Amino acid sequence: MQSREPRRIALGPGAEFDLIRSFLAAARPLPPEVLVGPGDDAAVLEGGWVVTTDMSVEDVHFRRAWLSDREVGYRAGAAALSDLAAMAARPVAVLVSIAGSARGGADLEEVHAGVREIAAEVGAEVIGGDVSGSPGPLVLDVVALGRAERPLLRSGARPGDEVWVTGPLGAAAAAVRRWRSGAEPTAALRRAFARPRPRVGVARRLAELGAAVALIDLSDGLAGDAGHLAAASGVRITLEAARVPVSELAVESVGQAAALDLALHGGEDYELCFVTAPGALAAGWIGEADRAEGVALTRVGRVEPGEGVWLEQPDGASARLARGGFDHMSEERA
Amino acid sequence: MQSREPRRIALGPGAEFDLIRSFLAAARPLPPEVLVGPGDDAAVLEGGWVVTTDMSVEDVHFRRAWLSDREVGYRAGAAALSDLAAMAARPVAVLVSIAGSARGGADLEEVHAGVREIAAEVGAEVIGGDVSGSPGPLVLDVVALGRAERPLLRSGARPGDEVWVTGPLGAAAAAVRRWRSGAEPTAALRRAFARPRPRVGVARRLAELGAAVALIDLSDGLAGDAGHLAAASGVRITLEAARVPVSELAVESVGQAAALDLALHGGEDYELCFVTAPGALAAGWIGEADRAEGVALTRVGRVEPGEGVWLEQPDGASARLARGGFDHMSEERA
Repeated sequence: MQSREPRRIALGPGAEFDLIRSFLAAARPLPPEVLVGPGDDAAVLEGGWVVTTDMSVEDVHFRRAWLSDREVGYRAGAAALSDLAAMAARPVAVLVSIAGSARGGADLEEVHAGVREIAAEVGAEVIGGDVSGSPGPLVLDVVALGRAERPLLRSGARPGDEVWVTGPLGAAAAAVRRWRSGAEPTAALRRAFARPRPRVGVARRLAELGAAVALIDLSDGLAGDAGHLAAASGVRITLEAARVPVSELAVESVGQAAALDLALHGGEDYELCFVTAPGALAAGWIGEADRAEGVALTRVGRVEPGEGVWLEQPDGASARLARGGFDHMSEERA
Repeated sequence: MQSREPRRIALGPGAEFDLIRSFLAAARPLPPEVLVGPGDDAAVLEGGWVVTTDMSVEDVHFRRAWLSDREVGYRAGAAALSDLAAMAARPVAVLVSIAGSARGGADLEEVHAGVREIAAEVGAEVIGGDVSGSPGPLVLDVVALGRAERPLLRSGARPGDEVWVTGPLGAAAAAVRRWRSGAEPTAALRRAFARPRPRVGVARRLAELGAAVALIDLSDGLAGDAGHLAAASGVRITLEAARVPVSELAVESVGQAAALDLALHGGEDYELCFVTAPGALAAGWIGEADRAEGVALTRVGRVEPGEGVWLEQPDGASARLARGGFDHMSEERA
């Protein structure tokens, strides 16, 4: 939601984006019924409602040549629902606004059905929205509404804590790289981009167990999103290069070094990055997550005093990683 | 929100729009924490939260030649907040998603400031959103969140009830007609389109007094929106032509007959249409609304058994009005 870095798109970064971003990140008095405002993955309202909105724009966030119309909707819905997972919220309802050409464009009913599909998969129902024509690109804005008794914020990490991620990383960005090079990604690689699964179940379990103290989803790449978490918590995060769970599919596609780069700086994995107190995550539970959800949990680093995100090599050398997510679109057109 | 008729836009009406609309209008099982779902101006959640989303697309809902960038935001925000008024909800918070060109397009910070301005005017705060590039039109999606102890729905009208509206009607559509004819509207006419005021105060008072039994906002024109209310309530609404409060500004601009047509079929007045039991609205309170809010209340018709919206002439002759709002854009380009 609000404090996510917008994609640096083909049209140029735009000082105005920065202005709006800084507006949203600024601490301002919130209405008393708003418990968490700008600066996290979603807002938290009185009564435990969690709300987030996420926009997907054709040729900025996706290309229609890459995805079926249903996948366009599925992916846009998954992006918004992943922001609920990032708060450890239980998805309840979704509103979908779609602007599209009624002539020669996407089948908007299929796009809508894709949003309904991913909503149903995580236990939510589409309960409203808006529909409009568009003289240009297909645009979706998905509002996700959930409930969280104990929302997990970005700001809870403390020096000494452990940094974990779900899933292998980098496959979605590797699929994009294939498309950009004019090749078709393998079915499995393609699926990582087209049908990401918001990690709702794992996030809920982490909250129930009280195992995590900070949480964010990976939409901009591990480096960028760990950077948001580090900034919100006022800490430094050191990632151990050898521990980052690089997707095997990505390695097959682009090689080991490039795959690590995609895991760190590629976007749209929609996995989670979370922080625990040292030793808080019992080995038994890690196995349970893997069995029940098919989600691997990997400790990738540690929280230290300081700021920023640092990558530590096996020989102990470490370097600070640049902020900001990788962007397929700008790289392609630049 | 959901069941509003989408504009019939330049790109053609689109059977897909109808499919999505019918999906949203269909009664389906709702999550237990959603008290009111598709089919009204906004959804109502457990705890009294009311949520709605409203999309504004350049060259569909507005033209940049007509509005300043700030007004683009103000108007988009007003449209969403008017849906809260239509539920008699108290606005609390707004999320704004903006897709725009960072180069040569609108000043997105000004657009955002316009949304903040109207939000502040009705007591709400912008607490989040999203920002993206757009390779085409400027697109805004505004999510409005409010609170209502006693939400007023579209479905409460019963035969014998009275039908009322706020404000004079037709000025916003008259401004659009001026622009379309190549002329500049007067400042007052222009303001009606550029800076509509959601009738939050009046709606809240109606709910507090228990004076209204059904409520909708006027985004598509009185005929279309009264039609939604009639359909939701399972009744016929008869409007008395001589009672419709046609805007004097509209009359000056397009003449009496055309101005009545704009009041009935023009869009974007963002006034309210509400239904009361016979005699429920005390004359004293009508004067109070006028003094306190500067909003005139006019009884325009009555609720009868049957269906649809009918226009009754002073001689007693009546004719059924066609459904569906007027659309500046399609008329212009057709």
